[in-house]
Amino acid sequence: MIHGGDIYSYNRILLDFSSNINPLGIPETVKDIITENLNLLSFYPDLSYKDLREKLALYFNVDPFFIVPGNGAVELIFLLMRFFKNRRAIIPVPSFLEYQRAAQLFGMDIQFVYFKDLGEQIVLDLSSLEILKRNGVLIVGHPNNPTGLCVDDMHKLVELCRRKNWFLVVDESFLDFTNKRSFLDFMDIYPDIAVIKSITKFFALPGLRFGFVICKNEKVVKGLWNLKEPWSVNSLADIVARKVYSDSMYIERTKKWLEEERSFFTEELRSLKELRVYKTEVNFVLVGLNGLTAGELKEKMIDKGILIRDASNFKGLDNTFIRLAIKDRISNTLCIKALKECLEGVG
Amino acid sequence: MIHGGDIYSYNRILLDFSSNINPLGIPETVKDIITENLNLLSFYPDLSYKDLREKLALYFNVDPFFIVPGNGAVELIFLLMRFFKNRRAIIPVPSFLEYQRAAQLFGMDIQFVYFKDLGEQIVLDLSSLEILKRNGVLIVGHPNNPTGLCVDDMHKLVELCRRKNWFLVVDESFLDFTNKRSFLDFMDIYPDIAVIKSITKFFALPGLRFGFVICKNEKVVKGLWNLKEPWSVNSLADIVARKVYSDSMYIERTKKWLEEERSFFTEELRSLKELRVYKTEVNFVLVGLNGLTAGELKEKMIDKGILIRDASNFKGLDNTFIRLAIKDRISNTLCIKALKECLEGVG
Repeated sequence: MIHGGDIYSYNRILLDFSSNINPLGIPETVKDIITENLNLLSFYPDLSYKDLREKLALYFNVDPFFIVPGNGAVELIFLLMRFFKNRRAIIPVPSFLEYQRAAQLFGMDIQFVYFKDLGEQIVLDLSSLEILKRNGVLIVGHPNNPTGLCVDDMHKLVELCRRKNWFLVVDESFLDFTNKRSFLDFMDIYPDIAVIKSITKFFALPGLRFGFVICKNEKVVKGLWNLKEPWSVNSLADIVARKVYSDSMYIERTKKWLEEERSFFTEELRSLKELRVYKTEVNFVLVGLNGLTAGELKEKMIDKGILIRDASNFKGLDNTFIRLAIKDRISNTLCIKALKECLEGVG
Repeated sequence: MIHGGDIYSYNRILLDFSSNINPLGIPETVKDIITENLNLLSFYPDLSYKDLREKLALYFNVDPFFIVPGNGAVELIFLLMRFFKNRRAIIPVPSFLEYQRAAQLFGMDIQFVYFKDLGEQIVLDLSSLEILKRNGVLIVGHPNNPTGLCVDDMHKLVELCRRKNWFLVVDESFLDFTNKRSFLDFMDIYPDIAVIKSITKFFALPGLRFGFVICKNEKVVKGLWNLKEPWSVNSLADIVARKVYSDSMYIERTKKWLEEERSFFTEELRSLKELRVYKTEVNFVLVGLNGLTAGELKEKMIDKGILIRDASNFKGLDNTFIRLAIKDRISNTLCIKALKECLEGVG
């Protein structure tokens, strides 16, 4: 499985635009928490992660019982698919590759539907879902990776799930980058929703491995615990995740950075006629290419020390799509410059 | 599932004798590695953990291909059982509870056999295995937890596995505490062996979560990778595990400590007539009680601020068994003193 962020396969990558990590880097508060708590490593984590769940529960205003912590969002994607393995999986694509991989691994019957390319944006097309059979589990990103947008009519999607008797898994790993509502708000009207959250992207901590599920369906919560391996969240992730959402300075700085750089970067990209730049609400942007393939551009960019995400292995996209992270001004400027040089004389 | 080390369920535990962690604590070298590499947290770990596998391969003198890293030994126990889920699981008991839990979770047919209590020691009885049917996967600790001894006749066990066509999973999480050979030495004569290693116990790092499998059966190695979730080993575990086995000072100090304290502690325990103290090769000791139950003793010891492992939930043991970690001299002395007080007038 090829993902973004694979900087290990190349010798001289200076700038990684392939993985969607907050360029502000690890919060200083997190570094302090870790260095002050190294002794926790000599204890097993609490099997039930009680204190961690209580802290997250306060922040997200739910009962701690409804929270299941995991070794990154990916553990929770796999646990949820395993729990629902006897249902049909409904997967709108293009989307995070592990949704599909998990469903396949557990032998699920998979129904793919396609996001709709409206030219300027790629959206979840509810009418493509309307025609599907009842029963199943629908998994979708909110916002979705690599398309970059939130579910537009959340209420309508929830009502559709209710009518169809679909369990709804929503991956909100990128939601903190937006100002949109969470599907948490719909759990009281429809409890068959599991929201996956992650500190990986927003707090620039992919190496720490922490994500969690919030779900108000008691049977599902118990089922996930029943399938879970013990101690899957390491002690440092445990202590960091208890405190990281209180770092309001970092959260503010991130939002300010993203607002500025997203308009700068996407406007610069739009000035390049060889690119079709899709609308994005997050810290990455999906781009279509005119006149060359993603593989060709990727090679050219690597020669300039920049790694981009060839998005052609996302089901539903072809070899004319790339995904670019949005980074700091200097990096973004270098990326634009390199793109200009690579695209010169193309098309 | 109740394990040792559950210090989170009690309010005032001063000394934890329930979990088998090296009391020398986190190696200083590990603390340095972590504080110097905090920036790794902002990168995804290498999906293939290439450098990590190469470093471990050098230390254990195998090809890196044969190494599969995991989020603690427990991830690997679960992956192996999942890979072999269509086989019968043969589990000598008492043993680590997760062998059984994993086998049950994957719906395996389980054949339990019992370690043999010889009064002074509890041993793997090969004749109890001889009578079992062909085909299956045998999982055993070497040394075994909670019985405390290595497999005595390793060669004979391997030959038995060959005759029976059993895949042999050996959990060597505690082997570094002994001077015994590894089952790695038998892989060239019988490739259907997977050895599980862990840095948790010996290097006092249960919170970091790192273990790995060495297996020379290519099909099994590929099968484990195929089932594995991506990035399951966090970046700090990755960097620490590359280097931790070079800390020869810590390794030596640990061996010296254990030799001294094991004889001190077990001799002191043997002086208490209410206890049956089993022979041990590791950093914990299984103890039978005369005249009171494990639950009763555990409560009394908690009142004195000491947590012991009530071993009655190990299949094959009854409510007269406890397991005690071996710790530093001061702690061991306090434990003996508390035991004396708790046992006074009993039996």
